[in-house]
Amino acid sequence: MQFKISKELLVQIEQFIQQKNDQELEVLLNEMHHADIAEIFEELEPYQATYLFKILDSEVTAEILPELEEDLREKILRGLSAKEIAEELDELDTDDAADIISELPQRKKEEVISELEDLEHAKDIVDLLRYDEDEAGGLMEKELVKVNENWTVLTCVKEMRTQAENVTRVHSIYVVDDENRLKGRLSLKDLLTTSTKTHISEVYIKKVDYVKVHTPNVEVARIMQKYDLEAIPVVDEMGRLVGRVTIDDIVDVMKEEADKDYQLAAGISQDVEADDSILDLTRARLPWLVLALFGGFISVHMLGLFEGAMKNHKELFFFTPLIAAMAGNVGVQSSAIIVQGLANNTLSGSLFNRLIKEVSLSLLNGVILAIILFLGSYFLLGASTKIILTITTALISVIIIASLLGTFVPLLLDKIGVDPALATGPFITTSNDICGILIYFSIAKLILGF
Amino acid sequence: MQFKISKELLVQIEQFIQQKNDQELEVLLNEMHHADIAEIFEELEPYQATYLFKILDSEVTAEILPELEEDLREKILRGLSAKEIAEELDELDTDDAADIISELPQRKKEEVISELEDLEHAKDIVDLLRYDEDEAGGLMEKELVKVNENWTVLTCVKEMRTQAENVTRVHSIYVVDDENRLKGRLSLKDLLTTSTKTHISEVYIKKVDYVKVHTPNVEVARIMQKYDLEAIPVVDEMGRLVGRVTIDDIVDVMKEEADKDYQLAAGISQDVEADDSILDLTRARLPWLVLALFGGFISVHMLGLFEGAMKNHKELFFFTPLIAAMAGNVGVQSSAIIVQGLANNTLSGSLFNRLIKEVSLSLLNGVILAIILFLGSYFLLGASTKIILTITTALISVIIIASLLGTFVPLLLDKIGVDPALATGPFITTSNDICGILIYFSIAKLILGF
Repeated sequence: MQFKISKELLVQIEQFIQQKNDQELEVLLNEMHHADIAEIFEELEPYQATYLFKILDSEVTAEILPELEEDLREKILRGLSAKEIAEELDELDTDDAADIISELPQRKKEEVISELEDLEHAKDIVDLLRYDEDEAGGLMEKELVKVNENWTVLTCVKEMRTQAENVTRVHSIYVVDDENRLKGRLSLKDLLTTSTKTHISEVYIKKVDYVKVHTPNVEVARIMQKYDLEAIPVVDEMGRLVGRVTIDDIVDVMKEEADKDYQLAAGISQDVEADDSILDLTRARLPWLVLALFGGFISVHMLGLFEGAMKNHKELFFFTPLIAAMAGNVGVQSSAIIVQGLANNTLSGSLFNRLIKEVSLSLLNGVILAIILFLGSYFLLGASTKIILTITTALISVIIIASLLGTFVPLLLDKIGVDPALATGPFITTSNDICGILIYFSIAKLILGF
Repeated sequence: MQFKISKELLVQIEQFIQQKNDQELEVLLNEMHHADIAEIFEELEPYQATYLFKILDSEVTAEILPELEEDLREKILRGLSAKEIAEELDELDTDDAADIISELPQRKKEEVISELEDLEHAKDIVDLLRYDEDEAGGLMEKELVKVNENWTVLTCVKEMRTQAENVTRVHSIYVVDDENRLKGRLSLKDLLTTSTKTHISEVYIKKVDYVKVHTPNVEVARIMQKYDLEAIPVVDEMGRLVGRVTIDDIVDVMKEEADKDYQLAAGISQDVEADDSILDLTRARLPWLVLALFGGFISVHMLGLFEGAMKNHKELFFFTPLIAAMAGNVGVQSSAIIVQGLANNTLSGSLFNRLIKEVSLSLLNGVILAIILFLGSYFLLGASTKIILTITTALISVIIIASLLGTFVPLLLDKIGVDPALATGPFITTSNDICGILIYFSIAKLILGF
């Protein structure tokens, strides 16, 4: 049932491609789901994928296109004429077609659009190209089933049959007025269980959730998830029904958001995958490492300032990485919880309450850890009483400060409109390293007086 | 349109509760979506939420229950008799009802089940209780529309009308044989566009995706996402149709998985939220901090071993946090990419290729960073040539080792069946801190000969 590409299958396909054995290839791929074929494409060399693409039916290849990674899709499309691309897009839903067109170079874009056969379809696609990919307009498809509030159910069913031909999944039937303004909805189930003689205006549900064309993707996702919706209509500034967003698009948005946040927390600033090129991976990773390196310069400089302590209290320097590590870990924990709370909209209460809570929490954690540190440094490491006093006091202070930084930096970023996820990962560990070391040696100076 | 709870609304509701003004409360909440009311519940004190719960209609409260956080739900249910709980559950879909029952204490569980009115519903719920919550059986609902392959379309439509009454969203109509074995599916759309005189066996689609009752949740999510499914049938060991999983459940699974991975990467080991109690938060955070602390002990001990270097090369100790931080950051980046690749099933190629790639990548990053380190420590920090040689060599070596650890530890964990996400966050930073320091001072010893 669950399809996994076997090594044998891949080898076989590669052999057939080399032998240009189109017949065997067609037999092999004929029964496969387009998502599986797309997965095979990703495993092949681009020239092999292009070869396969050309021998497959355009009904199949059209479905494969949106599933591919952008760079492979680009390579395949480069080998096709504008007319050939247009033929593929004629088979696709408007949202997928618009996404693919928007990736083409400007010149080819226009050529492809002029080659589209179905004029209505072409108009819809051009309309979608106007919207940003991060808003509902860029996510929606034009395909939907709508009926006029003034119709009878009989007209409605007839009309719907025609409309439904072009819609992959119906979900809801939207009700509009003569100006195409969204008025309500009808569920397919209602239609299935209602007598055909009823009048539309009597049966439709006036309460209907909708989003606007400029509603951000993540907000659309939040609404659809909260209200368990499988499709949501999109209206323009005048309240006219212009499209709908379906749950499968939202699943992709959620996946991308989660991946992005996860990567940011790990200090990776672009959407990359393990199989991307070394150059892409470096571009995504290096900036954060450079940031951390400059943070490191500051900590080197700071430690140099406390050089005087080395004469009588060299152990202090042995404990520096421990203190820095604890500060980093606590900061990442606090920021992660806040970033998630902001993303899931589950933060409540005032800033002051949060401050009190974070201080209590880190005091509790700090004291427990300080006790372990006390026992460990006394029995395991054999440190002196004064040093132990210094490091335990420093640990508790550092933990409190680190958790406060971890809590309030993302909140601040969010306030000023910057993605709070930037505040996790290298940024927070680096700043906590620096703060931690500064606090640690300041306390040491106070207690030990060097 | 998008509902946000205003402070004023909350204050108003709290006032009405205090005044026991049930009439106003009903007016206020009457028009609201149950998901919004659930959100209000979360903002109230438990006794207030319980009060509201009791004055609302059971049709509404039943829908609210599955939306609540587990601890609030528990508090509310504690105030209800078994009969009252059963009345709520009678209104719910089998999957939600089973989830709620499974949280009850054993004794109450049995009482509630015996109080359920609809026997068929009760049987379905009990059946669902057998499955683990992490597998398809624990995720599925019993509500679905199925028809027998031997029926005519006419019988089918009649039967479906009855069945559809109990099913919130129809999605697909499943076709079974006399033994209830899944044979194929019919789409609602096909039914809408096909003449009613056709025979079932002529129109149904024999190819149907399905999962088994013991298929893990994450695998179900992967399949539904890959094939863009909105519902998938679940079969038992004998191939009999026992339920279906719908996309809204999958959206929740994906959200939970993403949150869990994100938290693990940040060193938080349970599913917690910013608004959880200090004790819950400590339980989730402290273990990782203790781990990091013990890692710290090792680094303190190791640094002590290199005490001899302090006499002539004290700058070495100033650079320790910098080296440790770079090791930590590189390790987290590498592991995050692997963990995501494993989760998304996008890792390809052999281990050896991955090794080569990771070494080249970190060599490239390492050399660039070493050049910056060279310039910085020469011009900004005024370090000596020998020290600069030491720290740059150490930086490159540490980056290579850290990225190899970050790459292969999660791969190894995955191999032996442990969640690779455990290898990100504190675990990888701590072990990289230790390795980094050891490599750094070993190289220093080699070059400077102390």
